[in-house]
Amino acid sequence: TEYELTARKKFDQLVKPPGSLGKLENIVGKIAGMRKTYKPSVDPAAIAVFIGDHGIAADDSVTPWPQIITKQMGDLAAAGQAAISTISAANDIYLEIVNVGTIEPTTHPDIYSHRIGAGTKDVRIENAMSREDAIHALEVGAQTAERLIAGGSRFLGVGEIGIGNTTIAAAIISYITNKPAAEVTGRGSGIPDETFIRKQEIVAKISNLPANLDGIEILERIGGFEVAAMAGFILRASSEGVPVLLDGVITNAAALIAVRLKESCKIFLFASHNSAEPGAIAALEYLNLEPILDLGLRLGEGTGAALAIPILRAACHALNEMALLSDLN
Amino acid sequence: TEYELTARKKFDQLVKPPGSLGKLENIVGKIAGMRKTYKPSVDPAAIAVFIGDHGIAADDSVTPWPQIITKQMGDLAAAGQAAISTISAANDIYLEIVNVGTIEPTTHPDIYSHRIGAGTKDVRIENAMSREDAIHALEVGAQTAERLIAGGSRFLGVGEIGIGNTTIAAAIISYITNKPAAEVTGRGSGIPDETFIRKQEIVAKISNLPANLDGIEILERIGGFEVAAMAGFILRASSEGVPVLLDGVITNAAALIAVRLKESCKIFLFASHNSAEPGAIAALEYLNLEPILDLGLRLGEGTGAALAIPILRAACHALNEMALLSDLN
Repeated sequence: TEYELTARKKFDQLVKPPGSLGKLENIVGKIAGMRKTYKPSVDPAAIAVFIGDHGIAADDSVTPWPQIITKQMGDLAAAGQAAISTISAANDIYLEIVNVGTIEPTTHPDIYSHRIGAGTKDVRIENAMSREDAIHALEVGAQTAERLIAGGSRFLGVGEIGIGNTTIAAAIISYITNKPAAEVTGRGSGIPDETFIRKQEIVAKISNLPANLDGIEILERIGGFEVAAMAGFILRASSEGVPVLLDGVITNAAALIAVRLKESCKIFLFASHNSAEPGAIAALEYLNLEPILDLGLRLGEGTGAALAIPILRAACHALNEMALLSDLN
Repeated sequence: TEYELTARKKFDQLVKPPGSLGKLENIVGKIAGMRKTYKPSVDPAAIAVFIGDHGIAADDSVTPWPQIITKQMGDLAAAGQAAISTISAANDIYLEIVNVGTIEPTTHPDIYSHRIGAGTKDVRIENAMSREDAIHALEVGAQTAERLIAGGSRFLGVGEIGIGNTTIAAAIISYITNKPAAEVTGRGSGIPDETFIRKQEIVAKISNLPANLDGIEILERIGGFEVAAMAGFILRASSEGVPVLLDGVITNAAALIAVRLKESCKIFLFASHNSAEPGAIAALEYLNLEPILDLGLRLGEGTGAALAIPILRAACHALNEMALLSDLN
């Protein structure tokens, strides 16, 4: 676009060697194009964290963590005591927590509660959710993007909390990218070998679905509520022309669903980092996204997005405020 | 140390999967150890930018840029209009510019001026500087660290501006790491093939020195004033127990000199990024430092350091402010 080209051209005119801000010049140029502005910015920046439970985590087949942790972590995030809260506060990022379906209701008053159910169903036995619930979850995500944009946010990060959701993400990534379960399944929060082998088998089983399912059908079959909400969030933000910064492997899986539903949303996505979870590589390759950071993070919650935002913020400032080479003489 | 071990142990007790903040847990642990604190922080953070000229850039043998640009860029940095100024301002980092030897005096009143000479001598013909001048430049760097620490700074970044100094850095790196000139010489600000080939030959020639020179002798032979000042800065900061965050390839060369002068300063160094200049790989490998960012930057001025500081800041906040797993029940 004209805006992107103008930003790229201006980077070459700044008092620095051409191209010397590396990848950042490309990213800031894209932000200018998306936002249709000659003064790109990531501010005000916000991150939405969607939380939900998964029936597959009701026993300890894929993770030793009990489902109740999802709700507890959401409450802690709202109280400023989770990793995402401290990093967002340090980096001047507005944080919103949205509960789309934990097994028990959240108790913190600052959480937006739109519980679609008390966790998804166990996908080893039945579909994760009904078609109606998948559409409902997509809509909650879309409304969240809408609300943040109405509140002034012009750059959105996305994150999640959900015990068991690396299993769900791996299954979605395996199905959509056609990579075998063994290649895209990781150890999530850290699990022993025995659990890891079982997790790979479960990912293989639950991703073994009829070909050519659409995005909503994949959500029905595999889940989860927070994945659906993130996909809806991405779709609405992109249709409003607002960039979305992905976080770890679960957000990458949500982006695959969003792109499956509407291919054109892809150009509004940025990858904040390369998660230590192996599925992230397959998903980012499929989405043709190059990660900004590579720090071995595997925390989720939106933490990678929150860590990358100051880099993009500073690069926007450089474009907007630096002198030009032509000012030197 | 006890402080580092305590920080590492606390990271494992926070409400997150153990190790899930990746490389950042290790880095924050090191900061705790260096600063002898249970509450590591990078604030107040400051970056010192040392500027100086090089006789080798008096003609266009290694770079098309005239030497006067060094002084002009320093003035722009002090005026808030260089890349480092905009990025430091965006990231709440105090910035200090120190002129240790441009060909013409700086004109901006906010620059600390300690010009040791009007640029170094042309090292193709004679030594870059006298032993007295090398020691003087080291001392100016040391005093800068001292002044910033006295002013409250507890985490220091280092950067530079100096037309021709990628040639000087490549020669130092080639000499100290024993890598051939062709392997450690890059295109700096961007030069045509003809200049690049000549630059490699010049690096090979000026790094062809007697074995076992000490750090001061290397500075005399190759230069430059800003490299010497950065080495002095690193040595003094480390002796005060303050971490130093390196920037690009010139700062990496200065770190090699500092380590040559006093091996123990090495444990106070962090590498902010992997410069696109090839010498950076050899230098960081020699220093056994793993870069935090890899964004294809090759701007210098301390910009990579300024971009990495918010990541470390946020990771320190996470350690200090997150709830513990034991708080969950």
